[in-house]
Amino acid sequence: MKRRDFLTRAGAGAALGATLAGGAAPALAQSQVRWRMSTMWPKSLDAMHGSAEIFARRVGQLTEGRFAISAHAAGEIVPPPQVFDAVQNGTIECGHVLSSFFFGKDPAFGFDAGMPFGLNARQQAAWMYYGGGLQALREVFARFNIVQLPVGNVGVQMGGWYRKEIKSVADLQGLKFRIGGIGGAILAKLGAVPQQIPPGEIYTSLEKGLIDGAEWIGPYDDEKLGFHKVAKYYYTPGWWEGSAQVTLLVNKKAWDALPQAYKEAVEAAAAEQYVMMLAKYDASHPDALKRLVGGGAQLRTFPRPVLDACYKATQEVLGGFAAKSPEFKKIYDPWLRFRADQNLWFRVAEHALDSYRYSHT
Amino acid sequence: MKRRDFLTRAGAGAALGATLAGGAAPALAQSQVRWRMSTMWPKSLDAMHGSAEIFARRVGQLTEGRFAISAHAAGEIVPPPQVFDAVQNGTIECGHVLSSFFFGKDPAFGFDAGMPFGLNARQQAAWMYYGGGLQALREVFARFNIVQLPVGNVGVQMGGWYRKEIKSVADLQGLKFRIGGIGGAILAKLGAVPQQIPPGEIYTSLEKGLIDGAEWIGPYDDEKLGFHKVAKYYYTPGWWEGSAQVTLLVNKKAWDALPQAYKEAVEAAAAEQYVMMLAKYDASHPDALKRLVGGGAQLRTFPRPVLDACYKATQEVLGGFAAKSPEFKKIYDPWLRFRADQNLWFRVAEHALDSYRYSHT
Repeated sequence: MKRRDFLTRAGAGAALGATLAGGAAPALAQSQVRWRMSTMWPKSLDAMHGSAEIFARRVGQLTEGRFAISAHAAGEIVPPPQVFDAVQNGTIECGHVLSSFFFGKDPAFGFDAGMPFGLNARQQAAWMYYGGGLQALREVFARFNIVQLPVGNVGVQMGGWYRKEIKSVADLQGLKFRIGGIGGAILAKLGAVPQQIPPGEIYTSLEKGLIDGAEWIGPYDDEKLGFHKVAKYYYTPGWWEGSAQVTLLVNKKAWDALPQAYKEAVEAAAAEQYVMMLAKYDASHPDALKRLVGGGAQLRTFPRPVLDACYKATQEVLGGFAAKSPEFKKIYDPWLRFRADQNLWFRVAEHALDSYRYSHT
Repeated sequence: MKRRDFLTRAGAGAALGATLAGGAAPALAQSQVRWRMSTMWPKSLDAMHGSAEIFARRVGQLTEGRFAISAHAAGEIVPPPQVFDAVQNGTIECGHVLSSFFFGKDPAFGFDAGMPFGLNARQQAAWMYYGGGLQALREVFARFNIVQLPVGNVGVQMGGWYRKEIKSVADLQGLKFRIGGIGGAILAKLGAVPQQIPPGEIYTSLEKGLIDGAEWIGPYDDEKLGFHKVAKYYYTPGWWEGSAQVTLLVNKKAWDALPQAYKEAVEAAAAEQYVMMLAKYDASHPDALKRLVGGGAQLRTFPRPVLDACYKATQEVLGGFAAKSPEFKKIYDPWLRFRADQNLWFRVAEHALDSYRYSHT
């Protein structure tokens, strides 16, 4: 909190309180607020770090410059794995993260970033905003002195890059695979050795042979990160994140100190990026995918038995968390019902039309 | 424009210009602006009209009361079919519409609301915000003295309610069917008699037997409108709108007169409702669908030959518009390429995972 800078504008109060034709003029917030936001992304990832910059700019525009958030790329203030702690202890006011990186602190963060075989991006938004998700997760983050907001979503991920083909569950045995979050715990159950590595360091690890494969997001970012140069098999789907929601972590004391209008600005700008980040990724992936495949990437689909094994392991892992933690179970049970309802509805309409449409392409 | 009320707050300027530690204080917009917004929806449709109200409230919050938009339900100021004209001529500053209702003025409005067998809701957002769609459509609306913004999306629609089953293309012959937009023109090619009726009047038309069937949006609204009481066959999918985007129409002079910060507030609040309206519908549809089916609604899928005939007719109708209008073609050709690319990408990842997930439910 020490770097936040509250200034009061002396003298403006009387003028702002002046009564006008049509009623009293509203009193405008006077605080000059400066926040620092650390992202977990290198600047080259313009859909992720770029979205954080657009979010910050919008907050500045909405508050007419009174509330300025500066966006700092991975490592500029703290390295990616420390963003959570830095927000929690107030070194920075906010962070732009995939909370799945921090699921070791609480497995319920998986509901925030997206669970394996979980909700797709639209279903996740429905759960967060109108299905009780945001409120349920606020209780989890509150234990860490943090108020969180959804600030983007990347959609479903690709299943990653591999040096060798994955033809059966046996091929996962001993596989050193870079993956964030609960997906890693599930792959570990199947014999893989998950590695949690920030995006800026994945390529080198893969190139040096320290790992056998790596997943990040999808074609647009993956191409920039260069994975296709060191691992040619590109798998789909990224079952470990049916959608990957990006989260704004805000230090609770900093949040509570904001004037109401600035909170509104953060909320609106964050929700705007939920649709904008997804739109940017969706618009950018197709050309990147074509370039990758044109350049030699071998597109593969995980064999059904592999997906089935992962699905079963997912149920076991999540069930295990629920058995151990009443707090996890309190979110998990209604989340399961919500997912079942969403899948029912999406199958009836959205998936039916998409399936027909795709049969013509 | 006559009802807009610009006030200048005398005396506040000097105080607001005061220099503070850390640099000059930004000058805050002083205009008190009042807008009236007409929606095309009865108040009972709380996902549609309610979203318009939330949008208006957010703009007020973001501008700290300086910019107030009042939301008026269908008929309160003008009847739904006149909302477009009222915005165009400045009777009201803005309208909350499905622009497909007005496609008779320009068939390119179909790209705004969603074309038959067109983009799904996420693909539509990608096209609008990062695929050139918003800019292309701004040129179309500018001919009508209107600046438009996406302000919501309902997702894919259901295929409507029918008194009799649709077993073949022949069953469309002579069918008096309530449908908005270009979908009606396509059904007419197949022998149906499309009727454009505002939502508040559909039930009565169906009850009196003036029409044989009707579509609106999906379970949540359809249940409120009571269609299941007078037509028992409920079809999927609503192929005429792969997604139905809701649009804010703004009188151009009113838009141009806004201070920059108020424009930002409108943009952010409108984008926020893109995700929020969709989330509200997605979260609300499953329970409504269960109640409808539990109450006797017969769920049916359009037979493949019917969909194929509609798909073919769609290509002919849209191709016809393109042949007649260079302005339409200028949007249509890149839109077709964009759709093909989106479908390619969605099939690889999103659809692959959704299909697997749904196989377990």
